[in-house]
Amino acid sequence: MKNTFGSAVSLTIFGESHGPAVGTVLDGLAAGLPVDTAAVAAALDRRRARGDGLSTARLEPDEVEYLSGVLDGHTTGTPLTLVVQNTNTRSGDYARTVDLLRPGHADYTAHAKYGGWQDARGGGHFSGRLTVAATAAGALCESILAAKGVRVYTHIAACAGVQDAPIDPVAPVWPDLQPGHFALLDPAQEAPMQAAIRAAGKEGDSVGGILETVVTGLPAGLGEPWFDSVESELAHLLFSIPACKGVEFGAGFGFAALRGSTANDPFAVQGGRIVTTTNRNGGINGGIANGMPVVLRTVIKPTPSIYREQDTVDYAARTAAKLQIQGRHDPCIVPRAAVVQNGLVAFGLLDLFTVCYGTAGQRA
Amino acid sequence: MKNTFGSAVSLTIFGESHGPAVGTVLDGLAAGLPVDTAAVAAALDRRRARGDGLSTARLEPDEVEYLSGVLDGHTTGTPLTLVVQNTNTRSGDYARTVDLLRPGHADYTAHAKYGGWQDARGGGHFSGRLTVAATAAGALCESILAAKGVRVYTHIAACAGVQDAPIDPVAPVWPDLQPGHFALLDPAQEAPMQAAIRAAGKEGDSVGGILETVVTGLPAGLGEPWFDSVESELAHLLFSIPACKGVEFGAGFGFAALRGSTANDPFAVQGGRIVTTTNRNGGINGGIANGMPVVLRTVIKPTPSIYREQDTVDYAARTAAKLQIQGRHDPCIVPRAAVVQNGLVAFGLLDLFTVCYGTAGQRA
Amino acid sequence: MKNTFGSAVSLTIFGESHGPAVGTVLDGLAAGLPVDTAAVAAALDRRRARGDGLSTARLEPDEVEYLSGVLDGHTTGTPLTLVVQNTNTRSGDYARTVDLLRPGHADYTAHAKYGGWQDARGGGHFSGRLTVAATAAGALCESILAAKGVRVYTHIAACAGVQDAPIDPVAPVWPDLQPGHFALLDPAQEAPMQAAIRAAGKEGDSVGGILETVVTGLPAGLGEPWFDSVESELAHLLFSIPACKGVEFGAGFGFAALRGSTANDPFAVQGGRIVTTTNRNGGINGGIANGMPVVLRTVIKPTPSIYREQDTVDYAARTAAKLQIQGRHDPCIVPRAAVVQNGLVAFGLLDLFTVCYGTAGQRA
Amino acid sequence: MKNTFGSAVSLTIFGESHGPAVGTVLDGLAAGLPVDTAAVAAALDRRRARGDGLSTARLEPDEVEYLSGVLDGHTTGTPLTLVVQNTNTRSGDYARTVDLLRPGHADYTAHAKYGGWQDARGGGHFSGRLTVAATAAGALCESILAAKGVRVYTHIAACAGVQDAPIDPVAPVWPDLQPGHFALLDPAQEAPMQAAIRAAGKEGDSVGGILETVVTGLPAGLGEPWFDSVESELAHLLFSIPACKGVEFGAGFGFAALRGSTANDPFAVQGGRIVTTTNRNGGINGGIANGMPVVLRTVIKPTPSIYREQDTVDYAARTAAKLQIQGRHDPCIVPRAAVVQNGLVAFGLLDLFTVCYGTAGQRA
Repeated sequence: MKNTFGSAVSLTIFGESHGPAVGTVLDGLAAGLPVDTAAVAAALDRRRARGDGLSTARLEPDEVEYLSGVLDGHTTGTPLTLVVQNTNTRSGDYARTVDLLRPGHADYTAHAKYGGWQDARGGGHFSGRLTVAATAAGALCESILAAKGVRVYTHIAACAGVQDAPIDPVAPVWPDLQPGHFALLDPAQEAPMQAAIRAAGKEGDSVGGILETVVTGLPAGLGEPWFDSVESELAHLLFSIPACKGVEFGAGFGFAALRGSTANDPFAVQGGRIVTTTNRNGGINGGIANGMPVVLRTVIKPTPSIYREQDTVDYAARTAAKLQIQGRHDPCIVPRAAVVQNGLVAFGLLDLFTVCYGTAGQRA
Repeated sequence: MKNTFGSAVSLTIFGESHGPAVGTVLDGLAAGLPVDTAAVAAALDRRRARGDGLSTARLEPDEVEYLSGVLDGHTTGTPLTLVVQNTNTRSGDYARTVDLLRPGHADYTAHAKYGGWQDARGGGHFSGRLTVAATAAGALCESILAAKGVRVYTHIAACAGVQDAPIDPVAPVWPDLQPGHFALLDPAQEAPMQAAIRAAGKEGDSVGGILETVVTGLPAGLGEPWFDSVESELAHLLFSIPACKGVEFGAGFGFAALRGSTANDPFAVQGGRIVTTTNRNGGINGGIANGMPVVLRTVIKPTPSIYREQDTVDYAARTAAKLQIQGRHDPCIVPRAAVVQNGLVAFGLLDLFTVCYGTAGQRA
Repeated sequence: MKNTFGSAVSLTIFGESHGPAVGTVLDGLAAGLPVDTAAVAAALDRRRARGDGLSTARLEPDEVEYLSGVLDGHTTGTPLTLVVQNTNTRSGDYARTVDLLRPGHADYTAHAKYGGWQDARGGGHFSGRLTVAATAAGALCESILAAKGVRVYTHIAACAGVQDAPIDPVAPVWPDLQPGHFALLDPAQEAPMQAAIRAAGKEGDSVGGILETVVTGLPAGLGEPWFDSVESELAHLLFSIPACKGVEFGAGFGFAALRGSTANDPFAVQGGRIVTTTNRNGGINGGIANGMPVVLRTVIKPTPSIYREQDTVDYAARTAAKLQIQGRHDPCIVPRAAVVQNGLVAFGLLDLFTVCYGTAGQRA
Repeated sequence: MKNTFGSAVSLTIFGESHGPAVGTVLDGLAAGLPVDTAAVAAALDRRRARGDGLSTARLEPDEVEYLSGVLDGHTTGTPLTLVVQNTNTRSGDYARTVDLLRPGHADYTAHAKYGGWQDARGGGHFSGRLTVAATAAGALCESILAAKGVRVYTHIAACAGVQDAPIDPVAPVWPDLQPGHFALLDPAQEAPMQAAIRAAGKEGDSVGGILETVVTGLPAGLGEPWFDSVESELAHLLFSIPACKGVEFGAGFGFAALRGSTANDPFAVQGGRIVTTTNRNGGINGGIANGMPVVLRTVIKPTPSIYREQDTVDYAARTAAKLQIQGRHDPCIVPRAAVVQNGLVAFGLLDLFTVCYGTAGQRA
């Protein structure tokens, strides 16, 4: 359903970069769930650009208006709509459509799909600006899950050639995130990572990275065999993030080099509870959560907007052309994408939880 | 929707390993599309186990019965249902539920989810046997796409430590597949790959691998921004394959080591048509097909059924136990999974095609 | 989704009148629910034609094969597929498409929609034969609801000008149904109703009627405001029945003649439970079940297949023509449609129940 | 999907009566379709309350903000979001939940469903206020259909005991609607109808009525057999309207008194085109539009808010109580519901059109 996803809880996303606003509708939430607007604001603040050489200079307050579905700090059970105004748009910078096709962007595919009717100002509906809406909805889902004892955490596993410390997939421990800080397990990697990103930026270039998400406290039994496997649900959501080009669970592509005897996670009993002593399957067997931490990684490609001259095509003239991108762009969106990813994973799991327990079932 | 997926064309899958049959319903197909039953049979033959030390000794004919939706070799426009009987089941080997939890399998998660009501005979609904149904439906979609000029090809990029030759993502060329042959670009890799698989099997162990799919002839404009991106749709389907633990598009996880200046695919005009001169984005920009070959890779984990003794738990007794798996199992399912993957990709793209062109629109 | 409907539980229907089989897939059922195959057989028997001057002479045994999803008399939690073979088809009677368009049938619209590729043999996918599949799936849902204390009952409120006794919408009481008997509250109406139907049949004509369904034991709170109201869900399903042309709830079209002071059902407390003392709203307020009996009525139009000569058009020749229908047809399908309707209502309510309580939630 | 409906085009509705705003997201619209904001404003004006003794004194400007999906008067192909602020709310009048249950309203069912967490202020999400959003979205769909040659018209067939003139279902002709005027074929019925409504209002009571919608210009072939029949799609939408308790097509419940020989619409050729000479099936055969006018009727129950004292229950105390409703209420919502109904029918048909022709297909 194009811009709506989810089985029991659905997320609808709308907006354009230079339109009036971006927003989402979350439907199917049980009534009486906590709506932690402070957590939403904190997530938006972590996602926010800072104009510090790492992220774009488009500094927007990103204040969330709740149009429906929340009262006295709790969900009402009917659609929860939130909107964030676009206050800092410079529409004059952009034409309705983009003739000088930006490599790595959706300019050409938008032409092919919408026949010239697309809103191309600032990337329109394809813009990373939409992730503000996803972040807000996702942070809301995170806080709802947190109240159920489920925690979702995303760190920058690698960026610009700098690696974070590895996470323990059986018993993960993570630091508290402060606004403005990179989501790293090892704070000592922040300075070299930022330096490497700034270096690429100064060369008019951009870099990508790897984001790793770990979820603890998930009850065994969530997810479905076949099309609504935990992997299918989460990958569907994660590949919606502009710039995400790969998703893997547990040992992921590393499984190709393993044998069954090491790939299989042995079962054991701990305190009467069934666990696995390793977690190469990332907390998922047969598409269904097994109660161990869910572990996944995505790759975020380098920001396509770079300041170097690029070879391209004039769409209308059908001729070769040179492109020098102007405007405001991040040399690296990986740190900001971490917040988006965390929220979308939370949404997906809340959906699977609600499939299993229903809306009334959560109150019982 | 659990066992149904798709927007304009939907695929419903059903069956258990040791039940009467497995099958699928394909709904939303335009009327008058060719139904190439020979292509379906050929795909099932390529997927079929051969009892050759590479795959399980369960040798079934896998004959497809078409229960509805096809007449005189064409679709009628109403649901196309196909069923494959399970003829070679040994139900005596299995209890209703599996108490000695098999590591890497869904035994424990099925218990957690279904509370003991699951059909655990031969893995039940979680069994690789279900991929027979997916293969048949997928092969049907492949032949429909072929009639539209779209070709889908999957090769074993790596398995048991042996690599296939790389494919040219801009202008791929592939050999014809013969029944019984591995899907390789370089036939010289077949013997060493098979030897490596057999070696693992002889040690009572199993191996995984990487499957790469390339699609040519796809019109630019298929797919949607956000939740129905080409990546989201295909990943959702691919992660439904039991044993798939990672999906990447184009340069995939390799993007983490690239800079924007090399990650971006420059546009050019060739014969009046807009193309990219490299294809690191795997034929997809902003979630939408750009007309270049779609390129994706998955990782297939080693078969969890191995003959070595494993540490596990007795579910009912909640005690530690040793498990020695009996029965018939592949040391490697990668070659067979290639056929499944090829079909699911074809289904996903046919769905996106039908979203764009409708059912009546395909006849116009 | 064309031939699939439902939110938490989905029903997929497939088959053609003269194809190999008709069937359904029920997905999303919680595990461990009772599968009462005797109840399914009994429903099919009630729906079955008898060749008694009331219904067609096509006498088929309608034996149900369960292909998946059931073990030891209970649901497994994975898709439940059932198939009924078409054993008594006379394909020679029919061409691929129907050129002499039968008035009141889908011959012309099938042409317009499928461009000549439709399976027109015996009506194909439009045939009443498909209701065998819906009846079986519906009867299964009925027995599942019965185990939850929910009873669904449909009687022939009116047919061929003969009225049944009215049902008490606050405290309905109904007789047991015997195979072969009409579903009537007042058994004295059976003879005159059958006589009136036979009279129309002898004149080469057909008659329609009104079916009324009453559901007791439904928990308050099922259904949703707006698009998944109890009324929307049930009407969507009921209008899928070929020949259903109207659906009303409670006082239905009679509300046009009421005033608010009589249309409103006053609340009262009975045994600590909140009830309404009248039930003009048919057990539904704001789209949500209020715990009182759900009451609805449909109109079933006269069978379009009649033996009188009719004015029509030769589709290929685009010329006026006379049509004299041959073959086997019911002068009235109302009594048989009652069984179909009962089952579809049961399915719809089981879906809404599962939305509220989830799959795991039903086990808790 | 609760507050989202549609297959190829989806409509998501959100908001509460006394929350900040109501609105909708329309997704799946092809790019380049006209967005006639004047037509939307005109529809809202026709729906608007006038404080004239016929409708509530809550006079709101109902200005539509377009948050996304429209540029330069055309759709962009991405989600079209519109919002209408609630400017005239008197929150002080209402508590969070309603303890004195209003008969005929959703107060009790909201309690049963949401467990006290519902927003009950002014009816919350159950309020007729939500129909502002549906009206705006629907009017937009109407103008899109109009550009395709499809016209949708709804008149008040009966209200407060006064009948409008009948419409010719084969060749309907209708007058232009002026703001403030009742949608009647026979203007002479306006005065007596208004007088009858006012008379009921003066007695502290309310009345209902019958709305009839006729659609011309629809291409044959829209709709699907079984679950996406034209009847199923439209009835699903229409039963979402608070107060709609019945839907019928063509002869509707009148079919019960017809015989097949008169119920069947004979085919004929007119100007090379296949038509029916009568239209008792309301333009639909086998669930699929046959190219004749689509004709349907709904019943709208009397407004449940009346000024007379009513018997009810105190929810918290579980005791009998008397209720005297205060506030602003219409003695009759039928004339305003006509605008809502017209729009929802337009939306449903645009959805079915897009299923058939796709998004790209509409541009070709």
